[in-house]
Amino acid sequence: MLLCDIGNTTVSIYDGKQVSKKLTRYFKPSTIKEEIYYICVNPALKESIRSHSNWIDLASRVDYASYYPTMGIDRIMACEAVSDGVVVDAGSAITVDLVRGGKFEGGFIYPGVVAMQNAYKKISSQLDSSFNFELSLDKMPKNTQDAITYGFIAPLVKEVLSHKLSIYLCGGYADDLASFFSDAKVDELLVFKGMQKFIRKASLC
Amino acid sequence: MLLCDIGNTTVSIYDGKQVSKKLTRYFKPSTIKEEIYYICVNPALKESIRSHSNWIDLASRVDYASYYPTMGIDRIMACEAVSDGVVVDAGSAITVDLVRGGKFEGGFIYPGVVAMQNAYKKISSQLDSSFNFELSLDKMPKNTQDAITYGFIAPLVKEVLSHKLSIYLCGGYADDLASFFSDAKVDELLVFKGMQKFIRKASLC
Repeated sequence: MLLCDIGNTTVSIYDGKQVSKKLTRYFKPSTIKEEIYYICVNPALKESIRSHSNWIDLASRVDYASYYPTMGIDRIMACEAVSDGVVVDAGSAITVDLVRGGKFEGGFIYPGVVAMQNAYKKISSQLDSSFNFELSLDKMPKNTQDAITYGFIAPLVKEVLSHKLSIYLCGGYADDLASFFSDAKVDELLVFKGMQKFIRKASLC
Repeated sequence: MLLCDIGNTTVSIYDGKQVSKKLTRYFKPSTIKEEIYYICVNPALKESIRSHSNWIDLASRVDYASYYPTMGIDRIMACEAVSDGVVVDAGSAITVDLVRGGKFEGGFIYPGVVAMQNAYKKISSQLDSSFNFELSLDKMPKNTQDAITYGFIAPLVKEVLSHKLSIYLCGGYADDLASFFSDAKVDELLVFKGMQKFIRKASLC
């Protein structure tokens, strides 16, 4: 079974063994001839996929009453993978979603690494610095680079930990954040695992 | 005694009774003839003020070993006002500084309201929304506006509260944030109070 997660930047395809990635802007759905289950957050590509009958859209099978209508389908699938936990998906945005007893309990959206870096830079050229991902959050910072890194990371970490649930970390920036969540399970396949579970649950195959 | 706090957008002058504000870009230091103690984060204006002998720069009297060399002078003066507490200065950036026993213990920088709003907007047009400053942080959000508001506010609030100190709130966006910090002392004169204390401590008058 082929699974496909189409983001605004990257198309990820999982064949049950490995993930291959392509740039969304150059991706041609017609190159896939087999049956493929997909989620897509890119409206233009979603439209062009409709004419291909081997592409099966999971979004149309979601019970949005359990989530909310404008919630990203990638967030929903990551939540489907988890019975109890906080799902932290660190991409261009960092989404943080709570699941208890297999039920979505709400979530929030925090800006991602690049968005935060640009936000600081726009406030003042003095805040135009990369983040220090080696920073210890045990001590309050006394220099600018650490002050913006702490500002970006520490509030997010404290918020996530406050829910006292297992933490599942996925997305392109999961590795950068992993050291700040010592007990988190980093799982780059989380969205695909959610898709598999969802397909079984919906008896789609 | 006149006190002046020059930010990148606004010049605030305090005569001990009230604060008058002008736009930094149109401000002419030569219009003030009396002795005036000032702090300034605007490099161009700071340079032009130097030729006016009635303008007394407090930054040159600061013991930076107690703070750090690149720390904004406005943050330093707000800290000078406080013996024990967390100082939250909500301007274009939100600076959060810890003072214990009159000693600066470090601080961090978080993007301000406008910077965060723009950060979300740049990630996706679907996140282009104003914040809901009426939001209750007791419940996890289930719609986009609340998800970005919670993402902006809740992590910051939990981080600030985690230090278990009195909270002092100042800056142009203090009123927007006040409802999320129920026990905070909102004090728009905090920087000026710090300047007064600093002037007395340094025996400048």
